Amino acid sequence: MTVKTITLTPDEVHALAFSALLACGTSRPNAESVARSVTASEVDGIHSHGLARLPTYCEHARCGKIKGRARPTVKKTAAAAVTVNANDGFAHPAIDKGFDALVPLAQRGGVAAMSVYNSYNCGVLGYHVEALAQRGLLGLGFTNAPASMAPHGGRAAVFGTNPVALAAPDGHGRALLIVDQSSSVVAKSELVVHAAAGKRIPKGWALDAAGKPTTDPEEGLKGTMLPSGDYKGAGIALMVEVMAAAMAGASLAVDASSFADNRGPSPRTGQFFIAVNPRHFGAKRYDENMRRLAGAINAQPGARLPGAGRFASRKRIAAGGITFPLLLHQRILNIIQPEED
Amino acid sequence: MTVKTITLTPDEVHALAFSALLACGTSRPNAESVARSVTASEVDGIHSHGLARLPTYCEHARCGKIKGRARPTVKKTAAAAVTVNANDGFAHPAIDKGFDALVPLAQRGGVAAMSVYNSYNCGVLGYHVEALAQRGLLGLGFTNAPASMAPHGGRAAVFGTNPVALAAPDGHGRALLIVDQSSSVVAKSELVVHAAAGKRIPKGWALDAAGKPTTDPEEGLKGTMLPSGDYKGAGIALMVEVMAAAMAGASLAVDASSFADNRGPSPRTGQFFIAVNPRHFGAKRYDENMRRLAGAINAQPGARLPGAGRFASRKRIAAGGITFPLLLHQRILNIIQPEED
Repeated sequence: MTVKTITLTPDEVHALAFSALLACGTSRPNAESVARSVTASEVDGIHSHGLARLPTYCEHARCGKIKGRARPTVKKTAAAAVTVNANDGFAHPAIDKGFDALVPLAQRGGVAAMSVYNSYNCGVLGYHVEALAQRGLLGLGFTNAPASMAPHGGRAAVFGTNPVALAAPDGHGRALLIVDQSSSVVAKSELVVHAAAGKRIPKGWALDAAGKPTTDPEEGLKGTMLPSGDYKGAGIALMVEVMAAAMAGASLAVDASSFADNRGPSPRTGQFFIAVNPRHFGAKRYDENMRRLAGAINAQPGARLPGAGRFASRKRIAAGGITFPLLLHQRILNIIQPEED
Repeated sequence: MTVKTITLTPDEVHALAFSALLACGTSRPNAESVARSVTASEVDGIHSHGLARLPTYCEHARCGKIKGRARPTVKKTAAAAVTVNANDGFAHPAIDKGFDALVPLAQRGGVAAMSVYNSYNCGVLGYHVEALAQRGLLGLGFTNAPASMAPHGGRAAVFGTNPVALAAPDGHGRALLIVDQSSSVVAKSELVVHAAAGKRIPKGWALDAAGKPTTDPEEGLKGTMLPSGDYKGAGIALMVEVMAAAMAGASLAVDASSFADNRGPSPRTGQFFIAVNPRHFGAKRYDENMRRLAGAINAQPGARLPGAGRFASRKRIAAGGITFPLLLHQRILNIIQPEED
């Protein structure tokens, strides 16, 4: 099967996403923030969170499941604590605005934390913690999602595929490494991709609605995702749910409406971020330790630091542009300027 | 095979451990701190970190690999930052003393963090984060260990079986749940236990020194431990190494001397703790969210909250005492009062 494609520059992709979001009633600053993250996902080669996600973002803004004009409310509740009420809007502008308050607190105080509630799908979690690393801080991030994974020993979904992310600064305004991984064997979007392509999934990714192993992605989407490393993945998912839902004051996974369809109220999911300044810890050994740790990994054939794939993709895209299906391009153009029926 | 056992009360176990540590030149406050953790491990049913570990602790204090009389140096380096130099002593007194500085900072400021360096094996990581939960704080903990696990795609050990732990407060002076899990499929102590019992290990736990799967625990101990959930376990191990070694200013796993033998200098490994006060986040929904999350898990037959095993063990031990091998008891008595040769 040959898919017709189109290739655009990152600026063109940004303009496309920005225009589509505006056309659906998103405010300019919110559209800017979301378009920047969509473009970054494409540049990093993470297409599942790039333009492919944009039509859903637009639909949600249009149908009111997300309030495109929401203005996030940022509060400093204590010396090292920031809370952000996303007010049923997009996650990205809420996180961006919150970081402006969080970063100086962490830089001065050594560590600071930020909760985001009444929020939404934040896209690539690593994107946000990398923004902290670019400001010289180690970033730890947690985000929850509608329930799709059962607790260890149970059958009913209680957790999303709850990812955790860490970006470590390199001391020169960049991230040295970015860990960004879901607590399930694979992200749910893998099932969507397989279903769309009419492909089976390997055993061990998902269970059907009856709790039986399945190789049918459609059945898996009606059932539950399997945790990575059995009870340990479920343990990570629980940690994330505690941080990003309970501690953030967001909707629990069991209460959150879907990120995928237009039904229900806003998902009101949450995020939680911790920013740590290596200058106040580490006995002045942080930079040297990180350099040696990275060296011990990179010296091994076949091993590489997490995040290296994103960094490599950035170079490729800078040279060759962003290539994506022509049908998706047309679908987005149609959001910007609907064809007459 | 029948193993002769002895049953003691927790107070008797504490006195036994305390006396053994004193006999090896450990100062009274340090011995108190370590004995308390050894007793707690037994009470929690985690025998691998209880009395079974005590002879090694004692040997390390006696041979000078650990300085039993070290006095940890606690510094407040910023409004929310505490560093603890364990000064090549036991980890437990360093953590205990550091927490006295950390807890009020987190209670007032919303979040605070603490690094521990020039430290040692901290025993059960969950024990420490639970102490934060008992003081009303959510505790996140990381600790590194001598290298025994390879990075994803590599062959040479770069990480320990680096655990991560989280304890969430229940609002009434107790932990509601304790996640405490290594990033490997099983903890290294499982291989030691199997080797001692002359048993094979399942495939998938460890590789031999040549990088081949092995079912021989002795070969596994010479090789590397396998990460839980493949690259995701390696990702968690890297996160822990970044926090507990690089950020803490401790020895990297690749540099740390063994926790098991008397060779080399002090291990100088590290710990990192983050304490979060739910009162400053959570939009006043923390307690209700935690109650509902716990309920959604406990309502499922076969599912239970992490930490439930420890809480159940506490009840059993309170009724029936701590039972352990008579040979181990004699070995410990012999540390306290050596027999004539």
